[in-house]
Amino acid sequence: MTNAEKALALHEEWNGKFETVPKMSITTREDLALAYTPGVAEPCKVIAENREAAYKYTIKSNTIAVVSDGSAVLGLGNIGAHAAMPVMEGKAVLFKAFGGVNAVPICLDTQDTEEIIKTVVNIAPAFGGINLEDISAPRCFEIEERLKELLDIPVFHDDQHGTAIVVLAGIINALKVTGKDKENCRVVVNGAGSAGIAITKLLLTYGFKNVAMCDKSGILAKDSEGLNWMQESMMNVTNLEQQHGSLADALKGADIFVGVSAPNIVSAEMVASMNKDAILFAMANPVPEIMPDVAKAAGAKVVGTGRSDFPNQVNNVIAFPGIFKGALEGRATQITEEMKLAAALAIANLIPDSDLCDTNILPEAFDPRVADVVSEAIKSLIK
Amino acid sequence: MTNAEKALALHEEWNGKFETVPKMSITTREDLALAYTPGVAEPCKVIAENREAAYKYTIKSNTIAVVSDGSAVLGLGNIGAHAAMPVMEGKAVLFKAFGGVNAVPICLDTQDTEEIIKTVVNIAPAFGGINLEDISAPRCFEIEERLKELLDIPVFHDDQHGTAIVVLAGIINALKVTGKDKENCRVVVNGAGSAGIAITKLLLTYGFKNVAMCDKSGILAKDSEGLNWMQESMMNVTNLEQQHGSLADALKGADIFVGVSAPNIVSAEMVASMNKDAILFAMANPVPEIMPDVAKAAGAKVVGTGRSDFPNQVNNVIAFPGIFKGALEGRATQITEEMKLAAALAIANLIPDSDLCDTNILPEAFDPRVADVVSEAIKSLIK
Repeated sequence: MTNAEKALALHEEWNGKFETVPKMSITTREDLALAYTPGVAEPCKVIAENREAAYKYTIKSNTIAVVSDGSAVLGLGNIGAHAAMPVMEGKAVLFKAFGGVNAVPICLDTQDTEEIIKTVVNIAPAFGGINLEDISAPRCFEIEERLKELLDIPVFHDDQHGTAIVVLAGIINALKVTGKDKENCRVVVNGAGSAGIAITKLLLTYGFKNVAMCDKSGILAKDSEGLNWMQESMMNVTNLEQQHGSLADALKGADIFVGVSAPNIVSAEMVASMNKDAILFAMANPVPEIMPDVAKAAGAKVVGTGRSDFPNQVNNVIAFPGIFKGALEGRATQITEEMKLAAALAIANLIPDSDLCDTNILPEAFDPRVADVVSEAIKSLIK
Repeated sequence: MTNAEKALALHEEWNGKFETVPKMSITTREDLALAYTPGVAEPCKVIAENREAAYKYTIKSNTIAVVSDGSAVLGLGNIGAHAAMPVMEGKAVLFKAFGGVNAVPICLDTQDTEEIIKTVVNIAPAFGGINLEDISAPRCFEIEERLKELLDIPVFHDDQHGTAIVVLAGIINALKVTGKDKENCRVVVNGAGSAGIAITKLLLTYGFKNVAMCDKSGILAKDSEGLNWMQESMMNVTNLEQQHGSLADALKGADIFVGVSAPNIVSAEMVASMNKDAILFAMANPVPEIMPDVAKAAGAKVVGTGRSDFPNQVNNVIAFPGIFKGALEGRATQITEEMKLAAALAIANLIPDSDLCDTNILPEAFDPRVADVVSEAIKSLIK
């Protein structure tokens, strides 16, 4: 049986990856009278007087929705709401397994931006947070921004920010390993979708000055054709010298490559043209932009990928469970830029300097400390 | 500590009445690769090819949404989405405890009919059924009807149909106890909201010919003022002689009274004016339209209430868990009128003729057979 066959058979056996389990037994009339009518009227009346009490008496305090429209699922693309469910259920299960956060998958039978926004606003009362997932760019940017304005609970698009936080954590430690300085590094981010843009933004927030974004057509500049509104806005803060050319041109003399793009598009020659002790995050999945051994042989010092069978795996599961754990426990109303930076630093700091080396810049996905340190980092910034 | 205080303290202790519990453990990289990426892509691809496969691989097969807009919650009225959550969580928990059905409460931050319909349609892919709850009349009728047209999963407004099914079950057995014949019974339904209308409809479907509806203003007739569109449509099938007058007038010579109305509005004199061996379902809660002992002393033969401390409790929990259990197991796309009748008969038949008497016409809420016989009745009618 291949792993794919095994996964399919398990999904059939599970027949849905989680169940809803009552916290109380209901076996007597008294149980019924306390958990349901007439007793249930009491918390209802308190919440009707003061909406904040919902956090005291309902699942809102510890439950989020994992919302997708199925428009950009894994490497599968626009497969729609029903086909996206196994992924969203999986994500929901990871929230619980890694962060103790209850999560309900909500797959939307619409890909209209306005309808998505309205629908999420309408269902928000039950939830303490909204994790957006696998929504295609540039719609994901508007949906997230608008929801953050409209809702008083945290809204977080994991494909953007979860990835960005873990990449930044890895880069923070890679800088230590290589002795490079963020202010003087040249960074190339290849892939200008939701993850690439979020990574670029967070690197700039962290203090990198010189970041260029590339896509299939090469280096993105103000006069590039076909940019969406978010990519256009990025042109004001990236590629400050308005360089033009190919990815290969961009990489000449660069210190850091971050790929959220396609398999095998970075050659050994391109790595060799980078600065000494280059740092590469080649996160195309399952086949990275360049294989770690090839990159190392060409002179790279630190290489991370999305894969668990190489060192330095960039895995969002290091970030998102702790993010929402902290946000819910601390009753954050937003996940701010400061919180994302703090989360990245907390993750990076899990590797003590004495253990830091080119093959050990990020904690393992199953490191039991991760969710708690991320959670504490988030909570430390909640007023 | 009063029961109310106890209920409030328990709700705080529970801090949400259920949790989402993964069906698998995720403690190794292999677990992660099977439940999440890359293994999760396999069921996604199958569902993308054939949407039906969602029932094989996702929670859709055994999970429903309990949807409310908080506009007509218990006896509390229009308390809004947040304050309605304890009730919807309670309902969700009862679905699981009594029917083994996973249920997620969705409280909507809108009371606009069109927005409610759109929102429910948009979130439907994750769910195998929609239980509408505590939505005010007459909006509840339009919302349910439109959703039934738009969705290919069962939609069921429990306040209407759950109540109607259990009342019909009780009446079926009360007819046996009293030797009355449905075709010749005069029935008075007091309360013309969602429950009263649904009860009236189901009684007519079952074969009652002579039903009159009353509300605060008395007997409803074609020329009554202020009827909503659903009440107007009921005037074509009820009060066939277009009688006018008060509830007291309606009850003279009536065989059956069904109250979903207000405390203490039926007097001993009114019961005495009814036909011999009158049947009363006085379901106002917690104080019924008439207390059972008063009704009995005035000549009533069978009296049911909504209360667990009197015989013949009309409790929706006898119906709704089994309804959705059967609908999900049998993959019903609708809950039809025939299914409601079959459910009522199945409930009634749980009391063998030998045990039937004026104080034993309905099974107990905790009768462990109920959900299964209701479920089997539903399934027997699925093509």
